[in-house]
Amino acid sequence: MPLLTEDAKGVYIIAVTPFTDDGAVDWNGVDRMVDFYEEKGVTGLTILGLLGEAPKLTSEESRSIAKRVIDRVAGRLPVVVGVTAPGLAPMRELAESVMDMGASGVMVAPPWTTKTDDQAYAFYASVGDALGKTPWVLQDYPLTTNVTIAPKVIERIVRDVPTCVMLKHEDWPGLSKIGALRASSDKGEVRRISILCGNGGLFLPEEMARGADGAMTGFCYPEMMVGVVENYAKGDVQRAHDIFDAYLPLARYEQQQGIGLASRKYVLAKRGVISSAALRKPGGALSNADIADVERLLARQTKRLQEIGA
Amino acid sequence: MPLLTEDAKGVYIIAVTPFTDDGAVDWNGVDRMVDFYEEKGVTGLTILGLLGEAPKLTSEESRSIAKRVIDRVAGRLPVVVGVTAPGLAPMRELAESVMDMGASGVMVAPPWTTKTDDQAYAFYASVGDALGKTPWVLQDYPLTTNVTIAPKVIERIVRDVPTCVMLKHEDWPGLSKIGALRASSDKGEVRRISILCGNGGLFLPEEMARGADGAMTGFCYPEMMVGVVENYAKGDVQRAHDIFDAYLPLARYEQQQGIGLASRKYVLAKRGVISSAALRKPGGALSNADIADVERLLARQTKRLQEIGA
Amino acid sequence: MPLLTEDAKGVYIIAVTPFTDDGAVDWNGVDRMVDFYEEKGVTGLTILGLLGEAPKLTSEESRSIAKRVIDRVAGRLPVVVGVTAPGLAPMRELAESVMDMGASGVMVAPPWTTKTDDQAYAFYASVGDALGKTPWVLQDYPLTTNVTIAPKVIERIVRDVPTCVMLKHEDWPGLSKIGALRASSDKGEVRRISILCGNGGLFLPEEMARGADGAMTGFCYPEMMVGVVENYAKGDVQRAHDIFDAYLPLARYEQQQGIGLASRKYVLAKRGVISSAALRKPGGALSNADIADVERLLARQTKRLQEIGA
Amino acid sequence: MPLLTEDAKGVYIIAVTPFTDDGAVDWNGVDRMVDFYEEKGVTGLTILGLLGEAPKLTSEESRSIAKRVIDRVAGRLPVVVGVTAPGLAPMRELAESVMDMGASGVMVAPPWTTKTDDQAYAFYASVGDALGKTPWVLQDYPLTTNVTIAPKVIERIVRDVPTCVMLKHEDWPGLSKIGALRASSDKGEVRRISILCGNGGLFLPEEMARGADGAMTGFCYPEMMVGVVENYAKGDVQRAHDIFDAYLPLARYEQQQGIGLASRKYVLAKRGVISSAALRKPGGALSNADIADVERLLARQTKRLQEIGA
Repeated sequence: MPLLTEDAKGVYIIAVTPFTDDGAVDWNGVDRMVDFYEEKGVTGLTILGLLGEAPKLTSEESRSIAKRVIDRVAGRLPVVVGVTAPGLAPMRELAESVMDMGASGVMVAPPWTTKTDDQAYAFYASVGDALGKTPWVLQDYPLTTNVTIAPKVIERIVRDVPTCVMLKHEDWPGLSKIGALRASSDKGEVRRISILCGNGGLFLPEEMARGADGAMTGFCYPEMMVGVVENYAKGDVQRAHDIFDAYLPLARYEQQQGIGLASRKYVLAKRGVISSAALRKPGGALSNADIADVERLLARQTKRLQEIGA
Repeated sequence: MPLLTEDAKGVYIIAVTPFTDDGAVDWNGVDRMVDFYEEKGVTGLTILGLLGEAPKLTSEESRSIAKRVIDRVAGRLPVVVGVTAPGLAPMRELAESVMDMGASGVMVAPPWTTKTDDQAYAFYASVGDALGKTPWVLQDYPLTTNVTIAPKVIERIVRDVPTCVMLKHEDWPGLSKIGALRASSDKGEVRRISILCGNGGLFLPEEMARGADGAMTGFCYPEMMVGVVENYAKGDVQRAHDIFDAYLPLARYEQQQGIGLASRKYVLAKRGVISSAALRKPGGALSNADIADVERLLARQTKRLQEIGA
Repeated sequence: MPLLTEDAKGVYIIAVTPFTDDGAVDWNGVDRMVDFYEEKGVTGLTILGLLGEAPKLTSEESRSIAKRVIDRVAGRLPVVVGVTAPGLAPMRELAESVMDMGASGVMVAPPWTTKTDDQAYAFYASVGDALGKTPWVLQDYPLTTNVTIAPKVIERIVRDVPTCVMLKHEDWPGLSKIGALRASSDKGEVRRISILCGNGGLFLPEEMARGADGAMTGFCYPEMMVGVVENYAKGDVQRAHDIFDAYLPLARYEQQQGIGLASRKYVLAKRGVISSAALRKPGGALSNADIADVERLLARQTKRLQEIGA
Repeated sequence: MPLLTEDAKGVYIIAVTPFTDDGAVDWNGVDRMVDFYEEKGVTGLTILGLLGEAPKLTSEESRSIAKRVIDRVAGRLPVVVGVTAPGLAPMRELAESVMDMGASGVMVAPPWTTKTDDQAYAFYASVGDALGKTPWVLQDYPLTTNVTIAPKVIERIVRDVPTCVMLKHEDWPGLSKIGALRASSDKGEVRRISILCGNGGLFLPEEMARGADGAMTGFCYPEMMVGVVENYAKGDVQRAHDIFDAYLPLARYEQQQGIGLASRKYVLAKRGVISSAALRKPGGALSNADIADVERLLARQTKRLQEIGA
């Protein structure tokens, strides 16, 4: 499989982990999910991320899922694997393992003990050393990691560590960060890396306007991200917003902590992608009132998409 | 001015604090702002809240603004004043002062040292003691206070402290909390208090569906909250959502930390309510790219409101 | 190996993870360390804890170290293994694996998403279900987990989950918590479980006075904890304090975040227990000034121990 | 009163706020407390700090206490006043007010929203602007503010803002920070400012060894800090440690969150300095078991001080 590069763009979908109602991994669901994402036009897949249910897997299940996904896409799409760990040794071990399977790159978030600019730089410099030639994504996700990395620190890392090829941008608010990074690469002060944005896609049009290359997030309608990114790429800003606005009420609902993932799986199950909406323990489930909310939003979304011809 | 009661409903707008470009309080702006909110149909005003710029005021400015607002509404609308403080003595002092001016009630958030159910209960029991007969609002805002208060703890407070007449609901996600509280008051297990919702109105339709009585938040178009609440009240759920969806792209933009308040003031200045969009120091300002975002959203919002005839 | 029970008392030492200078696991060091702890009179060993360097191990290294330790003590001492994980599946997998090797019990800390009393109870109820007959330790460590568990919640867990046999007490301050738990078990309201205390032993005499059964912590002189616990057990409070006070200046120094672990390993290496004081990456090292501090404290400690005849 | 300068050294005691049993300010207690601190040899006083009970005062009480303290010391000792506030306007207002009364300087902690190196610098640059000619103390207290300020950021502030004359050092662990700051001022790279250390004095001997100028903390025996600082100043390191070690068991006990302040006031009341050990609401009280702990520690401390002839 080709390695991840600075030129990556489009939509790298954050995959869910499908389980059966009794909590076993739903292996056929994994296959159907990969096929579904590919049909909807995503450019890549990201698995074993910080959130979602990857941390609930045993280490053997994690590797098996990585293998299953990588085998299923069979090189047609790049796969990025989250390898964040408290130490460099387990991080490198998992990275080597998935790169051997055919992953295109790995993703690393900073430890929550990171406080100052120099500490953030030092951590990612040591990540670069540990990962050797493997290309990697800097996951900048302050809401979860509690670590804020200033643009000039990212630039310092990009300058010194050539294997850092992508920023998963999930600062909130972070529009000015994208602008700052693009300004310095436009001036030739620093290498231009790929910037893909998270946060459930909630700020995707504005992120594209600042120079992002696409999205890396898991909203249950990949069509939204694909549509926004494609239309922005060809300059049709209003169309991008039309599509975004049609999906926004549901995307917003899905961004609720906890209930959001249950909502995402409910829709994916309803769309026939996964066979069960169940979360593995510990994990919540939608109440009847939650389901009524989601159904109301889906009905309105369908109607609105028809109105705009999407 | 009439005192706040459990029957409160509608939209209590969280007022901004208007400053001139050089950071002085814009007293005429305070008056215009009050008039504007009243014209747009809000049911009440909330001032000196946790967020916003009230903490940047000197204590004398705080009292002067409270007085100016209370005098301006002249009893036509109830005014709720935030009195959260690290000790009961300064809390009571401010509460007595604003109630003497004619406020309708006060609002209190818990200290961040609150950890267990019993600690949350004990804090609010002592608040009830300290405030005497003054009706007060329990501000439940985990994202800022880092304190989560379970529904059964709120019920215990409501049962024992008769002056607790309202919940400012800002848990996130918190839809199930509204449902739980309404279920127990419907069964007669606990007094029914008013529930007004925050979070910039981002979940207002769903909150109304669970039994909320309205909103207490500061989005720059009070029309949105008023429209959603009124239409829900008369049973026109789809109309409520139509209005909500039209404003949602901007409401979402305004929920960005830091930049959100600058965006809110930019729109209020553009609407002629306040004379300057400036934040008092320390505080940010919109970049040109931010302004381009807001203007794009405003243009689309105007168009969409025309389409739906609102 | 006998299973952990409510009757456990004494000193369960938190073992360090020995590495060579270049970061490999020092297997002979593991053996020497186990022997050393046994010679110094500890009652049990705790491995793979939340802090320390266990999270820097690969999963295979973790299991190998658990096996090495369990084999080395050969049933002479009970071994408790930390199995905290984000999901019940990986927690159960590791627990089954180490119990098969001959561990005496496992230890579980709550996820940081735990906020209310009911959530803490529900988590530990599901832990009890997942672990089957394996006896387990409730790790109460708010400083790291950010979860505070009130005494009455612990009592509710103890009442409903018979396999919860021990509290690793590391609340800070937590003396009143020990007192509350002992009061309710003395009155027969709840089963009496073992309480072993952490926090580097910094409050050990006072914890014993409130009814703790001993210590579970990793200070580089197990002699201190053994001496305090033994003397308290036989009623010689002043002697317990004499011993404690002699070691306190060093114990305090070792409680510094980050530098503390480096200091602990420095002393253990100096004592000939482990061959290298190195921390695995990422991890700090003592500066010359730090070493001067530790040496000064050691010299004074030796002198003071002579004065008190210990 | 003379203004605070970079040459400040010795012990600036953090004063408690004395209340009567029913929660009123104990004005005579304020006077006695000032006299007591002066008799014990402190070099200065710090009032209205972040912790303690100053935040429980009404704003009028705060100013009255500042005035009472400043009048009582009558220029014999410098008084530093905490003026940390969410905005520059209330900070400047309080600073001007207390400097008019005769304070020697003010102290400012950063807002918890400070994340990156540049943000910390920008905040203190604006503090310098806002405070005019008033000398001020940079309060570096990550445990409470959640803001970590790297040595090179402090150096940048010291270089650009001449009115920053002192660091209240309360990082934990922070010994290497003192060393880094002293190394750069020794090389002439940056102005040498005063460094006084907090954390209840728990690391005072080691802090002095790294180049601190003294302590700014509130342990109930100022004699400890005075003794350690004086003996370090004249080169008698062992004597400094002897004194420190004698007080350490109690100093450690006093560092417990919540219960610590109650313990401090208990001892000050027992020593006849304040008339009541009561904390203003909300605030805890010592249990009988806590009092037994403190009394045991006091008895042992008295004995140990006799043994070392202090």
